[in-house]
Amino acid sequence: MAVRVVRTRAELREALTAAPRPLGLVTTLGALHQGHASLIERARTENATVVVTIFVNPTQFNEPADYERYPRTEDADVELCARAGADYVFIPAVDQIYPAGSDTVVRVGALTQKLEGAARPGHFEGVTTVVAILFGLARADRAYFGQKDAQQLLVIRRMAVDLAIGTDVVACPTLREADGLAMSSRNVLLTPEQRAAAPVLRRALLAARARYEAGDRYGESLRAAMRSVLATEPLAEPEYVSCADPETLRELAAFDGPALLSMAVRFGPVRLIDNEPLTA
Amino acid sequence: MAVRVVRTRAELREALTAAPRPLGLVTTLGALHQGHASLIERARTENATVVVTIFVNPTQFNEPADYERYPRTEDADVELCARAGADYVFIPAVDQIYPAGSDTVVRVGALTQKLEGAARPGHFEGVTTVVAILFGLARADRAYFGQKDAQQLLVIRRMAVDLAIGTDVVACPTLREADGLAMSSRNVLLTPEQRAAAPVLRRALLAARARYEAGDRYGESLRAAMRSVLATEPLAEPEYVSCADPETLRELAAFDGPALLSMAVRFGPVRLIDNEPLTA
Repeated sequence: MAVRVVRTRAELREALTAAPRPLGLVTTLGALHQGHASLIERARTENATVVVTIFVNPTQFNEPADYERYPRTEDADVELCARAGADYVFIPAVDQIYPAGSDTVVRVGALTQKLEGAARPGHFEGVTTVVAILFGLARADRAYFGQKDAQQLLVIRRMAVDLAIGTDVVACPTLREADGLAMSSRNVLLTPEQRAAAPVLRRALLAARARYEAGDRYGESLRAAMRSVLATEPLAEPEYVSCADPETLRELAAFDGPALLSMAVRFGPVRLIDNEPLTA
Repeated sequence: MAVRVVRTRAELREALTAAPRPLGLVTTLGALHQGHASLIERARTENATVVVTIFVNPTQFNEPADYERYPRTEDADVELCARAGADYVFIPAVDQIYPAGSDTVVRVGALTQKLEGAARPGHFEGVTTVVAILFGLARADRAYFGQKDAQQLLVIRRMAVDLAIGTDVVACPTLREADGLAMSSRNVLLTPEQRAAAPVLRRALLAARARYEAGDRYGESLRAAMRSVLATEPLAEPEYVSCADPETLRELAAFDGPALLSMAVRFGPVRLIDNEPLTA
C-alpha cells in the first residue's frame, strides 16, 4: 500500500478505525533521517499498521529561535516514510493538535527536573502533552522512540504507565554516522567546522565507557573523563555531563550497578545531545 | 449478570478486554446515593457494558480532614451498583491508581482557577489526574457525570477533548431530595439542624432564577439575590456565589445569553455546592 498523508484529527480517526491491528506509532518532529527510518522499519516488522506523525511542536521548544530554525523537509519526509514502510503519515497543523480553547497539560515530576529538563525549562511538559495527545489520537499498541533521547524515553514511558495509556513504549538503538556522531535532525545546522568537531561527544562517552570497563565505578571519575575529552575541542561548549542512575537520573557517586552517561554540548547556536548506557 | 467487583488494574483490564461495547463508565468516590444510581441507570440504557469505579481519591481532597471524614460504605455501594444495573465495580486500593514511582499529573488551565478551583487549591489537578487514569484503564465509550458538579463536568470534558481521549463526557441532571437539597454524599455529615437549613442553597438559586425569568440580565443583581436569601439562614456560611458564563466560568456583568448560577456554602465543617443553569 502506498503511504497516505492525513492532516486532521478527523481524517486520522477515520483512517485508523478500520486499520488492522496491532498498530505501531512513530512520533517525530520531521526532518527525518536514517534514525527515524530505523524506528519505522522496526514498527513495520512488529505491527499490521504503521503510523508516523510529523509535527514540529511549538510547546516543547524553550527557545523560539530553535523552533524557527528547526528544519522542515515535508516532501522528503513523506518519501522516507513510504520507503521505510509506513501506512499513514499524520502531518497536522498546530490547530489540529491544540484547537482553540485547548488548555490541558500533562506533566511528569522528578524525572523531568534533571539534565534536559533543567537545561530546557518547559521542554518536557511540551513533550508529554503532545505525546499524550498523539497517543490519544492514534490509540497505538506500540510506540517507538530512539535511545538517543534517553531521558525523553524514560519520561514518556513514565507518563504512559501512570495514565494507563495502553501503548507500549519501545526503545530503539541510536543510529550513528560513520564517525560516531549520533544522527539528529539538528546535525544539518552545523557548519562544516562544527560538524567536523561534533564526534567529540561520542569520543568522550567512549572514554568514560573504557574506564567503566576497566572497573571504575565512581560517577565523578567518569564525568571527569568525559569533560577532559570535551575540553580538547575548542568549538564544543559543554552544557552538562552526567553519570546517573538509569531509572531515576540521579547523579551517581560510588555505584555498583548500571549507569547512564549523557551530555549536552553546544556548537555555536546548535545544541547536541548523546548518551551511552552502561550495563554491568 | 450479577455485578462483579474487581480491585486491580490487571483484573479490570482482563474483565474489559472481551466486554461487549459500547462501554459506559461512572466514576465515583463511593457513598453512593440516588444521584449516582441515576447515572448508572442512564449508562445501562445506552451501553452494552457498565463499569462503576469507587475510589476516594486522596489527591483531590485539599483538606485532609475532609478526606478522613468522607463516608465509606462499600457493601451498600456494591448493592446499589447491582440494583442500578452495573456489570463491574472497580474498587482499587490507592497503589492500584498510583503505583510506586508514579509521578504524572494532568492539569487544565483557566477553567480550574475559578469557583471550586479558587476555593480548593489543587482539587481539580487531583480530579483530572485520577479521571485521566480511570479513563485510560476503562477505555469507555461514554462517561456519565452529574450536573451538580457543573465545573467538574466542564473541566473533565475539556481534558478529554484536549487529550483526544475517546470517551464522550455525558452530563446528567442533578437529583434532589423532596425539599430541594441536591443529593450529595456529604449530606449525611450534616447535623439535623444543618440538614434542615441546607435547602437554603436551592431557595437562593430559585430566587435568582425568578429574577432572570422576569428579565433581569445583570450578574451582580442575580448574585445579590442569592446572597440575600442565604443571609436569612444563620447556619449557612457562603463561600462564594457566582453568576458566570457557562463555558468559561467568567463572572458576568450585563449579559444576554445563558448563564450558570452556582454557590458553595459551609454548614460547620461540611461544605455543600449547588448550581442552576439559566438558558435563554
